[in-house]
Amino acid sequence: MKTGSWDLGVSEELEMVEKRMRELVNSPQMTLTNVALHVIGAGGKRVRPTLAILSHHALHGNDLGKLIDIAAAMELIHSATLVHDDINDGADIRRGRKAAYKQFGLHEAIVAGDFLFARAFYVGGLFSKKIVEVVATSTTRLAEGEMMQFTHKWDSTLSVDQYLKIIEGKTAHPIKSAAEIGASLAEGRPEDIQALGEYGLNLGIAFQIIDDVLDVSGDERSLGKPIGTDLKEGNLTLPLILARDEDKAAARKIKEIFAAKSVTDAQVSETLKIVLGTGAVKKSIEIARGYATGATEYLDRLPESVHRSSLIELSRLVIDRTN
Amino acid sequence: MKTGSWDLGVSEELEMVEKRMRELVNSPQMTLTNVALHVIGAGGKRVRPTLAILSHHALHGNDLGKLIDIAAAMELIHSATLVHDDINDGADIRRGRKAAYKQFGLHEAIVAGDFLFARAFYVGGLFSKKIVEVVATSTTRLAEGEMMQFTHKWDSTLSVDQYLKIIEGKTAHPIKSAAEIGASLAEGRPEDIQALGEYGLNLGIAFQIIDDVLDVSGDERSLGKPIGTDLKEGNLTLPLILARDEDKAAARKIKEIFAAKSVTDAQVSETLKIVLGTGAVKKSIEIARGYATGATEYLDRLPESVHRSSLIELSRLVIDRTN
Repeated sequence: MKTGSWDLGVSEELEMVEKRMRELVNSPQMTLTNVALHVIGAGGKRVRPTLAILSHHALHGNDLGKLIDIAAAMELIHSATLVHDDINDGADIRRGRKAAYKQFGLHEAIVAGDFLFARAFYVGGLFSKKIVEVVATSTTRLAEGEMMQFTHKWDSTLSVDQYLKIIEGKTAHPIKSAAEIGASLAEGRPEDIQALGEYGLNLGIAFQIIDDVLDVSGDERSLGKPIGTDLKEGNLTLPLILARDEDKAAARKIKEIFAAKSVTDAQVSETLKIVLGTGAVKKSIEIARGYATGATEYLDRLPESVHRSSLIELSRLVIDRTN
Repeated sequence: MKTGSWDLGVSEELEMVEKRMRELVNSPQMTLTNVALHVIGAGGKRVRPTLAILSHHALHGNDLGKLIDIAAAMELIHSATLVHDDINDGADIRRGRKAAYKQFGLHEAIVAGDFLFARAFYVGGLFSKKIVEVVATSTTRLAEGEMMQFTHKWDSTLSVDQYLKIIEGKTAHPIKSAAEIGASLAEGRPEDIQALGEYGLNLGIAFQIIDDVLDVSGDERSLGKPIGTDLKEGNLTLPLILARDEDKAAARKIKEIFAAKSVTDAQVSETLKIVLGTGAVKKSIEIARGYATGATEYLDRLPESVHRSSLIELSRLVIDRTN
């Protein structure tokens, strides 16, 4: 996955965010820098910085220096959680690269994650209390979402509501924060900041649902990672939940795997095949589309601008990943 | 180890710090709260909060609410690093309790550590930029100290200078920050804040040297953890370095163990016995005492007060742990 692979007219700002992140992870302890650059250098869609930048511009902000700083901080927090998550998920590959803990070692990855948090808060702390509060709260919610996911590992009865609560904490809330922060920095009206936050929250839910759909129906090469990992790790996601609720064979298969708390590659293929035979993927995409469309409705109250159009375009691109 | 086992006239404030920490780790995800309370509840000497409180009072500060908040934040960061460090050290026991990752699981401990960081920065972020910068920088230095220690794992040639650099990052710098923050909150004169910072830095070095001495010559029961862990984990500490440089048998033994990168309990006992037969422990305590005395010299320029006396007493107590 290339960095900033979406063209939304902010590639120049995104380049500055990349540069700032690289500066921030400079350390006399080269291993820390190397782990950090390994994760940052793997790219990614940079949803959080993109959203912070677009939200800022949509409210006619022009504090570029601060915007780049805080966007870099938010992406560093995201990078920190990726480094730690890969350990927790036992993932081998991330964005087409070896997971950091596989490349550098478990202990190195744990400390490098902490280092990334520290660097992010170093920059983040230079902002207003309101902004620091938003960043710290979203990081708290993120940890809570992760923990809720652990608690329901191998839980074949997970409901759609519980699933939504998990992804809200671990993905949607941080994306919401990015939008709010970009908007706050522009000193927008409270109702506009709130609207952009709601846009971010709904976009984040759509984004995670599509991620989870791609883990069922995606192409491994273009994803840069194997599919079926959620099933392997005992995490029920929306397409799996919907398949379970719609199809008896899928329900039986999922129950069997989750009871055993382990699954072979053959079982993964077989289960995915059953799931793909149901309407679950299509229905999941429809639900994601509903959130993405709902997100754009919050933009109605914002002033017309090229950046508002880009935000609408972003919500389309999030869903388009399944094509 | 009891909480606040040193009587320095600040037990009331320390109680408030405990209460604040417990409030801050409250979460709908009970596992996060449980891991956090497991670590916090194990107690510890609360050096950082104690020092923040004493430094604040020494400069006639009276912003109790903020002081308690920031002292709690600093101890939460310390707790976060303990949770992650135990994983990295493979420790079984911490402060007489099962290490968190052994009790709750590796993944739970990683996320709970991140949660503790997030909660600490949530509170820490409510303060001035200067204070946030001090906290974030010391957290960065901490990760760098940890990483430097990893880099030199099983390095039998570690020098005293390198050792000092490691403990400065991982222990002394955070303790320095606690002193500076308590002093900053009191709105003390820059030279007084700096003096308290230097006191903290030197006290922190003394503190870690004594910790390392106790891992060689201490009593397992009163320590609440086994001794010889540094040797087992391949970390050369001051007493081990001095023994190596003074005694050929010690040098041979350490070289042998470190080349094998593994050590049996019998080898630990044997090596500790050789080290105890040298002058290394006594010399290490003398060096620690030098730092502790050096620390108090920075207090000379501060106004006379009961809290200044307590700071002098604290530097004595740090060394006294070996008696």
